Amino acid sequence: MADSAAGSMKSLLQFLKLVGQLKRVPRTGWVYRKIENPESVSDHMYRMAVMAFLVKDQQLNKDRCVRLALVHDMAECIVGDIAPADNVSKEEKHRREKEAMEQLTRLLSADLKKEVYELWEEYEGQSSAEAKFVKDLDQCEMILQALEYEELEKNPGRLQEFYDSTAGNFSHPEIVQLVATINEERNSNIAAARSEPQS
Amino acid sequence: MADSAAGSMKSLLQFLKLVGQLKRVPRTGWVYRKIENPESVSDHMYRMAVMAFLVKDQQLNKDRCVRLALVHDMAECIVGDIAPADNVSKEEKHRREKEAMEQLTRLLSADLKKEVYELWEEYEGQSSAEAKFVKDLDQCEMILQALEYEELEKNPGRLQEFYDSTAGNFSHPEIVQLVATINEERNSNIAAARSEPQS
Repeated sequence: MADSAAGSMKSLLQFLKLVGQLKRVPRTGWVYRKIENPESVSDHMYRMAVMAFLVKDQQLNKDRCVRLALVHDMAECIVGDIAPADNVSKEEKHRREKEAMEQLTRLLSADLKKEVYELWEEYEGQSSAEAKFVKDLDQCEMILQALEYEELEKNPGRLQEFYDSTAGNFSHPEIVQLVATINEERNSNIAAARSEPQS
Repeated sequence: MADSAAGSMKSLLQFLKLVGQLKRVPRTGWVYRKIENPESVSDHMYRMAVMAFLVKDQQLNKDRCVRLALVHDMAECIVGDIAPADNVSKEEKHRREKEAMEQLTRLLSADLKKEVYELWEEYEGQSSAEAKFVKDLDQCEMILQALEYEELEKNPGRLQEFYDSTAGNFSHPEIVQLVATINEERNSNIAAARSEPQS
């Protein structure tokens, strides 16, 4: 028993070290657009979890949304952040991430292994209202981050492709409203830059 | 009504932008020890939230632990990460963080304002078993990160002060066990480095 407890603690430590690599995986979309010191995958999941916590819709299980947000990109600690520009097919991306989630969750005790793996599956399969909401969060957090990078760079409008690729994808009313507010601020930044006297 | 909804969305956006600054607040302890590309405060809270999710102790409300982990350092988006080496008194640190949490949560609707502020207060006051557990997580996540930095730098033993300052602080049995496993791996790294032939 003592040996087995020690063994499971070593596995848990191994799991946590793999998860810790997310801190050192920069989000590929920003790297390709040459953002300085881009956020990590865990930075992104952190704010998504906070956003999940702020949802008002009582139909959604808020804690489940938080858990989904914490797990949905976890496989990237092994496979990295595969971006659309990487030309990896959706199926191949899913295959790699599934393998990584199996490898990761094997390090957990039976009940946790099932719980974490199933959260990831639920998100991948978009099989619940919570999973669909968290997908909205994923893209909304990204365009919010794009707005912040444009503001930090004082270069409004530079990251247009992130807005183009997500336009019309949002379905939860709270997120649709938030996205409208993000776009409003961004459009006003762009308009202000256009009306400045050229130096 | 429409105006007030638009106003609250603007406030929510402001809140999320402040929280987003956590991605750009490096953890001061690592900065002072000249770690290259140190983790952000949100990186740290992300892994703590995952650790909270893995707790087995059925006496603890796991989702509450996750929420506490997500909120406990949130004030640092405004006040920064004040480290012991900064010589700011505990009272002054608390005063600044309280003010920051008031400023932050004013941007939320009444119910969320109360919920987020009270989570922070619960952690600060260490007024629940969950808050005490999350404090254990906070320090355990830090020494795990120290181990990983020593391993990445191939410099076992360099970050001894983080182990000295936390030794004996852990009380939850699951964390005590995990800390023992971390120390075991670290001690074996140190022993291996000592027994290598000097070049």
